[in-house]
Amino acid sequence: MPNPKPWLDIPHDSDFSIHNLPFGIFSATGKGKRVGVAIGEYVVDLADAASEGLFEELQFDFGVLSSEYLNDFISLGKQVTGKVRSIVQFALCDQSSVLSSIEGLLVEMTAVTMHMPVKVGDYTDFYSSLEHATNVGKMFRDPQNALLSNWKHLPVGYHGRASSIVVSGTEIRRPNGQIVPDGQNEPEFGPTQKLDFELEMAFVVGKETQAGTSVPVKEAEDHIFGLVLFNDWSARDIQKWEYQPLGPFLGKSFASSISPWVVPLEVLEPFRIKGPEQDPKPLEYLQTGGEKNFDINLEVAIQTKGDDKPSTISKTNFNRMYWNMAQQLAHHTSNGCNLNVGDMMASGTISGSDRDSLGCMLELTLNGAIPITLNNGQKRSWLEDDDTVILRGFAEKDGVRVGFGECVGRVLKALE
Amino acid sequence: MPNPKPWLDIPHDSDFSIHNLPFGIFSATGKGKRVGVAIGEYVVDLADAASEGLFEELQFDFGVLSSEYLNDFISLGKQVTGKVRSIVQFALCDQSSVLSSIEGLLVEMTAVTMHMPVKVGDYTDFYSSLEHATNVGKMFRDPQNALLSNWKHLPVGYHGRASSIVVSGTEIRRPNGQIVPDGQNEPEFGPTQKLDFELEMAFVVGKETQAGTSVPVKEAEDHIFGLVLFNDWSARDIQKWEYQPLGPFLGKSFASSISPWVVPLEVLEPFRIKGPEQDPKPLEYLQTGGEKNFDINLEVAIQTKGDDKPSTISKTNFNRMYWNMAQQLAHHTSNGCNLNVGDMMASGTISGSDRDSLGCMLELTLNGAIPITLNNGQKRSWLEDDDTVILRGFAEKDGVRVGFGECVGRVLKALE
Repeated sequence: MPNPKPWLDIPHDSDFSIHNLPFGIFSATGKGKRVGVAIGEYVVDLADAASEGLFEELQFDFGVLSSEYLNDFISLGKQVTGKVRSIVQFALCDQSSVLSSIEGLLVEMTAVTMHMPVKVGDYTDFYSSLEHATNVGKMFRDPQNALLSNWKHLPVGYHGRASSIVVSGTEIRRPNGQIVPDGQNEPEFGPTQKLDFELEMAFVVGKETQAGTSVPVKEAEDHIFGLVLFNDWSARDIQKWEYQPLGPFLGKSFASSISPWVVPLEVLEPFRIKGPEQDPKPLEYLQTGGEKNFDINLEVAIQTKGDDKPSTISKTNFNRMYWNMAQQLAHHTSNGCNLNVGDMMASGTISGSDRDSLGCMLELTLNGAIPITLNNGQKRSWLEDDDTVILRGFAEKDGVRVGFGECVGRVLKALE
Repeated sequence: MPNPKPWLDIPHDSDFSIHNLPFGIFSATGKGKRVGVAIGEYVVDLADAASEGLFEELQFDFGVLSSEYLNDFISLGKQVTGKVRSIVQFALCDQSSVLSSIEGLLVEMTAVTMHMPVKVGDYTDFYSSLEHATNVGKMFRDPQNALLSNWKHLPVGYHGRASSIVVSGTEIRRPNGQIVPDGQNEPEFGPTQKLDFELEMAFVVGKETQAGTSVPVKEAEDHIFGLVLFNDWSARDIQKWEYQPLGPFLGKSFASSISPWVVPLEVLEPFRIKGPEQDPKPLEYLQTGGEKNFDINLEVAIQTKGDDKPSTISKTNFNRMYWNMAQQLAHHTSNGCNLNVGDMMASGTISGSDRDSLGCMLELTLNGAIPITLNNGQKRSWLEDDDTVILRGFAEKDGVRVGFGECVGRVLKALE
C-alpha cells in the first residue's frame, strides 16, 4: 500500500508504525506462545486472526502461527510471510476487517510477554565495523598496525554460543571466570571486573542451504529474513586472558540479548544506502554493487538503580558497516557451510568515529581508563550490578519511521 | 551383570560386545528413524522391542524411542537410560526374551542406515592435548614458547559450527576459500590445498543446566552422557589466513564427522586411568582427583581410491589428554553458560609424543614438508580427492573389549 492509513491510533513517534509490522512470539492471559505482529501500542494475534479467516486466501498450515518460535513460519518463505504482512497492513487500514470487528485479536502491548522470536541453531558474530576493529586493535595490539592484514579482505567472524542468546528483558548474571589482575602473572577466579555491552545488529537466516553449496553474494539477501538489535555482553578481563589463540569463549558465552521483534528486510528497503568504499576491492565472490547498507539510527543508554531515566551514552548508525550483510552471508557459505532457518549472524560492535558514537564501554572509556559520566553524575568505567543497558534503533525518512523497539538487560550480581 | 553371556554369536574382536551396547539412531526397510543398540553384527530395535513389552517395568514415554534423535531419550536421565541398557543386556543373555523369540527386533547391521545420533544444539571444540598444542605452537608461533601462557591454566576452547556436524559415511566436499599462496601477500579464492583431518573424541551433554549456574567439577561427569569419535576436518590454508584475531571459522565449519554410536560413559568405567600431572595446579574450580581420563586406543587410516585396504597412519590414545572432560565441562559452565542435552564438546586433536602418534596431517607431515607414505606407496602431504579417512577407537582390559566402530568420510572434489 503506497500510503496506508490505519484506523487505530498510533503514536507519531512509535517504532511500530503501519510501515513496520515486525514479527515476534508473544504470550498473554489465555494465550499460549504464538506469532504476533507489533502495531503501535498493540500486538496483532496472528493465530487467532487466522482462526477468524484473516488469511483464508493463503495456502499454508496455520498451525505455524501457534508455534513457540518463528522458525516454521519463516520457513514458508518470503512470498508467504510478505503476504501475511500485507494482509495485516490492509486489515489495519480497513475498519470492517476482523481485526477491528472481533474482540481480542489486538492485545495491548503492556499485557503481553515477549519470548525468543526464533530458535537459534547456530550463531555467528562478525567484526565488520572498521572503526571498532581499529579502536580495539590499537588498544590490544599495535597502534601503528591496528588492523590485521586479513581484515579488509574478508569479513572476519567467529562462532558464538547459541544457547545463551536471550530475549530483551532477561536479567544478566555477572559471570565469574579466570582473570589475571593488573600487575600479576597468575590468574584468579572471580566475578568479572570489566563487564561490557556491545551494540550490534543481527540478522535471522530465512532460508536453509545444503552442505557443500554456497550462496552467491548477489542472492545472499534472499536468505536474510529480518533484523533485530543485539547486545553481545562481554567480560573483557576474562576475554583478554582466554582468547589466544582460538578466539573469544567464556568472555562472551554467558549471555547475548536480542530485541523481541524481527523487522523483515523488506521493511528496510526505503532506508538502503551505499556502504563505505572498499579498498582493496574484495575478491569476486564478495563484490556487491548498489545500496547494500541500511541507514538505521542506533543508541545505547544506561539506567542505574533508583534512577527513573536512562542516560544516553552513545549514538551511532548501522550505515557505516564496512562489510555488509550480503557479504557476511556469502562469505559464511563460501566454504560450503550449511545454514538453517533461524541461524543468527551479528554485525560485531558498531562504532562511529566520534567519542560519543562508540559501541562498547571498552572503547568509550578507553579500556576503563577514562570513565563516562551519566546524567545523574554517576561515573562508569564498566557496568555495575543493577545497571540496565538499553539499545534502541530506528530508521526514518520522508515521514516514514520504523524501529526495533528496545533490547534491554539488567545486570545481576555474580553468584558466589 | 558381572559376566554376561549372550546367546547370539558375537565376533571376538567386535567393538560392540555385550559389555558395550551403545545407542544410535538407525533406519531400515520398513523401519523409520528410531533408537537402536549395537550388539555384534546386529542392531536391537528399541522402538519395536518396547512395543513387545521389553521395557514394561520402566515408566517412560516409549515414544522417545521412535524419535529422529537421541535427545529426548537422553533427557530421561542416566537412571532410565542405564536401566534400558541393563534390560537389553539381560535380554541378550536370556534366550527366552522377546529379543530372541520375536522376529525383527534384531536387524543385521549391514541392512541399516545410521543417522546423526543427536541434534547438536551447540558444539564446542577444546584444545586439550599438550602434545598437539605444543606441536602447533612450534610450527605457527614460537618454537621456544610453543604454549601460550594461558594453556596450562584453563582448557582452551572455542565455539564451532553445529549445523555441519555429520554422521560417519557422509561425503565431505573439499571447501573453497580465501588462501594466500606461498610467497604472495594477496589472497586468492579457490579449493583448499591443505585439507586435513583431526583425530578427536567428543562427548554428548546429557543434562541441561540453567543460565547463570555452574556445574562443580566433581559433578561434571553426571552431565556427560557418552562419547563418540570426532573428525574435525580442517582446511589449513583457509584457517591460517582467517583465524586472527577471533579464531578458526571457515577453515573448520565446512564439516565435522562423528561415529554413529554413542558409548555411554558408564561403559567406559573399567578403562578409567589417571591423567598426566597438572603443573601448575589448576585453580580450585578445575581440580579433579582420581581417575578422570580414559584408556581408549585410537587410530587413523587413509584409504585411497581403488585401494582395497586402508593404511594406518597414526596410533595414539585418549588417556594422555592434559585436560579431562570433567574439567572441560566445569570450565564451560564456570561463567554461567547454559548447556542443553545434545550439546557436543570435542577434545581437540589427540596427539602422542611420537612421530607415528600424531592426530592430524599438519603434525604428521610438518605442515606438508615431509609427506607420509601409505602402504600402497602413494605419498600424501595433505588429503587428496577421493581419499577416505577412517578413525577407529576401542578400549580393552581383562578380556573385555568395547569400541566405537568407525568414523569415516570420503573427500569429494571442490565445486567450481
